[in-house]
Amino acid sequence: MACIFKMEDRYFMKMALALAEKGRGFTSPNPMVGAIVVKDDQVVGRGWHKKAGEAHAEVNAIDDAGPAARGATLYVTLEPCNHTGRTPPCTKKIIQAGIARTVIAMTDPNPDVIGGGIDCLRNAGIQVTCDVCEKQARKLNEIFIKFSRTKLPFVILKTASTLDGQIATRTGDSKWVTGESARLFVHRIRHEVDAIMVGIGTIRTDDPSLTTRLPDKKGKDPIRIVLDTRLSIPENARLLSLDSEAETIVVCGKSALDHKKKALMKKGVKIIQADEKDQKIDLHSLMPVLGQMGITSLLIEGGSRIIHSALAADIIDKVFLFYAPKILGGNDGFSLCSGKGPEKMNQAVQIKDMNVRWFENDIMIEGYLGK
Amino acid sequence: MACIFKMEDRYFMKMALALAEKGRGFTSPNPMVGAIVVKDDQVVGRGWHKKAGEAHAEVNAIDDAGPAARGATLYVTLEPCNHTGRTPPCTKKIIQAGIARTVIAMTDPNPDVIGGGIDCLRNAGIQVTCDVCEKQARKLNEIFIKFSRTKLPFVILKTASTLDGQIATRTGDSKWVTGESARLFVHRIRHEVDAIMVGIGTIRTDDPSLTTRLPDKKGKDPIRIVLDTRLSIPENARLLSLDSEAETIVVCGKSALDHKKKALMKKGVKIIQADEKDQKIDLHSLMPVLGQMGITSLLIEGGSRIIHSALAADIIDKVFLFYAPKILGGNDGFSLCSGKGPEKMNQAVQIKDMNVRWFENDIMIEGYLGK
Repeated sequence: MACIFKMEDRYFMKMALALAEKGRGFTSPNPMVGAIVVKDDQVVGRGWHKKAGEAHAEVNAIDDAGPAARGATLYVTLEPCNHTGRTPPCTKKIIQAGIARTVIAMTDPNPDVIGGGIDCLRNAGIQVTCDVCEKQARKLNEIFIKFSRTKLPFVILKTASTLDGQIATRTGDSKWVTGESARLFVHRIRHEVDAIMVGIGTIRTDDPSLTTRLPDKKGKDPIRIVLDTRLSIPENARLLSLDSEAETIVVCGKSALDHKKKALMKKGVKIIQADEKDQKIDLHSLMPVLGQMGITSLLIEGGSRIIHSALAADIIDKVFLFYAPKILGGNDGFSLCSGKGPEKMNQAVQIKDMNVRWFENDIMIEGYLGK
Repeated sequence: MACIFKMEDRYFMKMALALAEKGRGFTSPNPMVGAIVVKDDQVVGRGWHKKAGEAHAEVNAIDDAGPAARGATLYVTLEPCNHTGRTPPCTKKIIQAGIARTVIAMTDPNPDVIGGGIDCLRNAGIQVTCDVCEKQARKLNEIFIKFSRTKLPFVILKTASTLDGQIATRTGDSKWVTGESARLFVHRIRHEVDAIMVGIGTIRTDDPSLTTRLPDKKGKDPIRIVLDTRLSIPENARLLSLDSEAETIVVCGKSALDHKKKALMKKGVKIIQADEKDQKIDLHSLMPVLGQMGITSLLIEGGSRIIHSALAADIIDKVFLFYAPKILGGNDGFSLCSGKGPEKMNQAVQIKDMNVRWFENDIMIEGYLGK
């Protein structure tokens, strides 16, 4: 069936995408979705998915429109669901409300349900237009898309280094590489992701709390994951005695001693025993385990050995590489990656869709790993 | 005396600055200068300084204007000279041509002549307006400004690395880090500078010719300088048998053997015997030597040990740091800097006025070292 595009479709879809953004950090494992009801070129209803378990964006927008929804156009950033989950199918709501036309940014990425919502609406005589602002919609829900398809977390690597790629001096000093504005953005990412992962080296050097500290809203703490093959985490490590709604997980190897596990479990820590590879946690085989736990997104914040392992295990989807306007001027500190590199330059990991953003005097390079 | 700014001054000065750019790479040790003669809001004369020893920009512009120069306004990017050098003073030419008003972007940076040209014009009854587009004019002639004031070369560091700060793999492979567009820009810089400097390590690994290869114009080769403390340069090194108008200089330490020096001199190579510091050439004390030779600008292209030394010696004025969209993923290769770094992150070298430019998929970070 031919799709009919109208001039104003992109305009209204961008409004719906902006509404979807309001759910950022709160909707996991669901996607962020925004919806707008438009009648006679006037917005008569707005809605977004606020939180997993609560109403979907379409329902909120149609309810907001009330009787004005009849004969109106619905703009929604993701194909409406056609199945009963924690809430009834949105297609039913759309049909019952008398929506005449539905404009959709992207189809459902789940291979089992693709097109189901669209077919249902068309069968009910509703005109459907697809792929309006599709690229933006896919970027908005890149985490949801990957997890829907693979049941593996979407992995983001965040680093902060000098322009010569050093994350700390030889004494381990890294306070601070980047400025406040960059560090604030990192807290926004922490709020967005389900989990954050660091190596035991980072715990020993920085003793971080890995919580989300945002000045303008109550952020959501991510689940904290520490890779600690031999369970050598200090008893007084800050993240073992936090007041946080999110749990702390320590991932150890098969050889970790039972009494150490028990001592940590007593502190409320969850232990995952994972496969080892070259005496380190095998990150490749850890990812499905985290996926099964419902972790749809994972932020890796270093240090340099876990960054090396994550790159070698080919688990990274996206990078946020911060650079401060400084050159450390030596190679005796901690490089961005610590470990064996390839023999040839053309074996380097390629970054796609690279983009540069400024944070005061720092820059951030954003990009995706080619797959 | 009050300076009178007119609305159109910036407009015409930008035209003069663009003309000055045409001399880029050809005017050393002179500055790039552009000039425009404007009468009744019409450009009646254009000129720029084409080459050291040839006519100054003001003279070319006034000659281009002919009799129309009488009563006109002259826009010139640098204070006109008031002394007889290889050419007669420009102030004389301006006065004789009957120019009514002169607009100047920046005063002469030479502390001995500052204001001399302006005073001379004013005394002749010519209206003078200064500091129009001063910032752009200063950037245009940053090399000339530093050299006029210090008699030391303006030193530019150029690097090409992966996003994790690696310039080559552990096997020394660096072909290629960045793409063609970035490499072409490097040849433009080579054309602009008086000299290019590399360490002996780079000669051994890459055996570069260090010449300027530009597709669209005949570029000028820079003087090639190799730091080679013990004169271990291979006899068959490419830059020892080049067909190039520019000379090759090898800088050695005091302990370099006489027969090695003689062998190189027979090949037409110039030898400079320099002070050593920690068994390496003392770059800090080498700079005045190069300045005395009339080298106003120096491009350092690596490798990682000379970059480290240059940063440690605090001789760098500007950086061009290229980054390819790739992560090498190890620290066993060649870092941007190789050597001892500082103990604390706040001892890192600060980069000021940082700017990002794209070269196809690569980025270049441009910046200045704080002094």
